[in-house]
Amino acid sequence: MTIIPTAAVLLIGDEVLSGRTKDKNLGFIADYLTLLGIDLREARCVADKEDDIVAAVNALRARFTYVFTTGGIGPTHDDITADAIGKAFGVPVTHDPRAVEILLTYFKEIGREPNEARLRMARVPQGATLIENAVSKAPGFRIGNVFVMAGVPKVMNAMMDAIAPSLERGVPMQSRTVTLQGGEGDIAAPLGEIQSRYPDVFIGSYPFEGPSGFATNLVIRSRKPHTLEQAEAEVKAAAASLTQEGKARGWN
Amino acid sequence: MTIIPTAAVLLIGDEVLSGRTKDKNLGFIADYLTLLGIDLREARCVADKEDDIVAAVNALRARFTYVFTTGGIGPTHDDITADAIGKAFGVPVTHDPRAVEILLTYFKEIGREPNEARLRMARVPQGATLIENAVSKAPGFRIGNVFVMAGVPKVMNAMMDAIAPSLERGVPMQSRTVTLQGGEGDIAAPLGEIQSRYPDVFIGSYPFEGPSGFATNLVIRSRKPHTLEQAEAEVKAAAASLTQEGKARGWN
Repeated sequence: MTIIPTAAVLLIGDEVLSGRTKDKNLGFIADYLTLLGIDLREARCVADKEDDIVAAVNALRARFTYVFTTGGIGPTHDDITADAIGKAFGVPVTHDPRAVEILLTYFKEIGREPNEARLRMARVPQGATLIENAVSKAPGFRIGNVFVMAGVPKVMNAMMDAIAPSLERGVPMQSRTVTLQGGEGDIAAPLGEIQSRYPDVFIGSYPFEGPSGFATNLVIRSRKPHTLEQAEAEVKAAAASLTQEGKARGWN
Repeated sequence: MTIIPTAAVLLIGDEVLSGRTKDKNLGFIADYLTLLGIDLREARCVADKEDDIVAAVNALRARFTYVFTTGGIGPTHDDITADAIGKAFGVPVTHDPRAVEILLTYFKEIGREPNEARLRMARVPQGATLIENAVSKAPGFRIGNVFVMAGVPKVMNAMMDAIAPSLERGVPMQSRTVTLQGGEGDIAAPLGEIQSRYPDVFIGSYPFEGPSGFATNLVIRSRKPHTLEQAEAEVKAAAASLTQEGKARGWN
């Protein structure tokens, strides 16, 4: 049996919890990990508070193959992620010589003053390795099974590209969607029955209000292509037997 | 001293962790709670797995004034939230007579078959009270300090409106944004200095790439209007003294 790597995402930042920033990082990482065959099992979001970050990192890194964090690695006073991760691992945080070099070269190139605040972005916990940042150079870092990335989506996306080759991959989950022009309550019984006969398949039911009224997306997911096809055929048949009823007039 | 209620959000559903659904519920609830003066301190997302839901609900309800969950209360086999919440509270889950009545009336009105699956949506943990659903009738419920809502954004939004009058409110956090046409590294030192003199103010720094190049939003938040104004004036002055340098050529 293939072992499927597992993962958690930790979004760090007051701006998500205050509502000011609408997070897009979770969805991006979720899609990315699905393509790599890594099971994203949990996500958390905490504020820029050291104790909260430490507690979340330690809870998650003990349970999953990988933890991916975003946010809090810039040059300002509210960027406390590196120190919090250092504390979580019980190691000091110091300037990484290679990160300093990367930053100095970059600042010279773009005419930025390499001040103390900017060079804080070269600080990493002892034992960490750098994550390349193709967009704005200031690196992320990996320590143990924890990958620490920027919060700016464009930068984080580039860091995921840098990380990807080093990750163990599993068999990617494949998915099929069958759209039922009707309420999920009509198909609930046959759907549950199909689910019970396919333990390797995950069937989800997601009602929505579309241009032609209420409908339901039935999502079938599996790592076994043949089983997926069989289950999909059964869901399709169950859905087809229901679509004679006319337009659905409500959710569920 | 006024006590500020705290809160956590728990998103329940495989579809968010697989990347298929890009969550919008966290941002909506975050904005809503900010307006009510309730501090959202943490958010989590777990899959449709009973043990994971139970663990998250019990961890969060012990730590915060309120917990708001979304997802998993429909009629299909993957809707296991009510049972998981019942287990978290150690109480049985049964059909609520008023919920059954609401559903039967609604199904009659829209011509839906009131089958066993649909009536599962009337099941709530013992001791729970119903949350009105102005959109699709199937209610959410409250048990203890946990509010259990639908995952469909339109329905969840209506449930927040139904819940809001029953929530304790705090003094709302107000915020001001000062946009610096430059890198956050230039203002990091004075910004940190201002922050250290205003312990009741939360200052965040968020770089972005705008139409006229790189810039930084400096967000100043406080529950004390006068203090907020003072801090804002200082941040504005610090930003103004830096904007002579010309267009920023990079992040941070």
